[in-house]
Amino acid sequence: MNIGVLGTGIVGRTIGAKLVQLGHSVKLGARSANNENAADWVRQQGASASAGTFADAAAFGELIFNCTAGTGCLAALEAAGAEHLAGKVLVDVSNPLDFSKGFPPTLSVCNTDSLGEQVQRAFPAVRVVKSLNTVTAAVMVNPGLVPGETDIFVSGDDAAAKAQVSDILRDWFGWKSVVDLGGIQTARNAEMYLPLWVNLMGALKTPMFNVKLIH
Amino acid sequence: MNIGVLGTGIVGRTIGAKLVQLGHSVKLGARSANNENAADWVRQQGASASAGTFADAAAFGELIFNCTAGTGCLAALEAAGAEHLAGKVLVDVSNPLDFSKGFPPTLSVCNTDSLGEQVQRAFPAVRVVKSLNTVTAAVMVNPGLVPGETDIFVSGDDAAAKAQVSDILRDWFGWKSVVDLGGIQTARNAEMYLPLWVNLMGALKTPMFNVKLIH
Repeated sequence: MNIGVLGTGIVGRTIGAKLVQLGHSVKLGARSANNENAADWVRQQGASASAGTFADAAAFGELIFNCTAGTGCLAALEAAGAEHLAGKVLVDVSNPLDFSKGFPPTLSVCNTDSLGEQVQRAFPAVRVVKSLNTVTAAVMVNPGLVPGETDIFVSGDDAAAKAQVSDILRDWFGWKSVVDLGGIQTARNAEMYLPLWVNLMGALKTPMFNVKLIH
Repeated sequence: MNIGVLGTGIVGRTIGAKLVQLGHSVKLGARSANNENAADWVRQQGASASAGTFADAAAFGELIFNCTAGTGCLAALEAAGAEHLAGKVLVDVSNPLDFSKGFPPTLSVCNTDSLGEQVQRAFPAVRVVKSLNTVTAAVMVNPGLVPGETDIFVSGDDAAAKAQVSDILRDWFGWKSVVDLGGIQTARNAEMYLPLWVNLMGALKTPMFNVKLIH
């Protein structure tokens, strides 16, 4: 499958590399077509990997992963272009973390709204599924890095899109337990967990952790 | 020990009952001295249990549990009286859940502040430890209701108070894993988890769950 990955940070490069490993063709999108992170990544990934602008990656992908930083997320999707995203499933991995006042970060949107909802409202023809934003990049595509079976969440208004993303999480990335939180409004709940996640990364002295729901 | 429990809802009654079972003398505090929930509870608990106003319970307790509703929390503590709380350890179990716009609730404070911090700022002589707010009442005092070992959090600026509360969680209530999140500022992280908790209660169809941190 042709897949567009928006964002050339550690999340985009990690998800992109896993997708290439799985046999897909992946175009990494950045603000400019000559992004150095993306160029390095393409050299490492080989022939199935390419890079371009956000618009190039969005046009290329039948499926899109939004791995941009929360504060630049909506601008990146504007640059990608509604016409290149319309009708496609977009896995929204972004988090509204605002580091402008230092560490720990605050959230740039929360409580009565979320990045996931903002993306869905700004691009009503896109089939947005919020997921993977509650674990570190390496764990997103390799949940076995955390011992035992832990949980990953999905939120979205489009049931078929959510089912497709759940299958991708299970069959491509190896997640055993995918918990459906509900509509895209529930993205605010998964995003509001992030401050606790950042706190726990400090308390546990590792980002390689996740929660297991016990009931 | 004489313990004051502020709040006569399910959280206050459940924690109060456990403390009575453990052999402590417990006074449940409410807005008025003739609260019906409190009177029923006293009849069920026997001679070590009593009830009164918030001020009565605060004056009575060497240790205080704040189990009031988030929206009424600061008013309840004002009524309890700074002079009755000063120097004492206060376990703040409250959550800033605002149900005024229906279900699911929003948070009345979050992101850059929390109820735990508001309580500590309003009563600087009180030794506030945020804890137990991330599980349902029955699980707070009986973590074994959830199979396997799960995690409970503590936040607070007073290290000795936090150590005492951690001992109470372990030795009185049976928590095996008490995770120190840091100072009282980290209460905002534990409180911001609540919207996800409410969401998961719906997804799992039970409030009898908790998270286990896997790393």
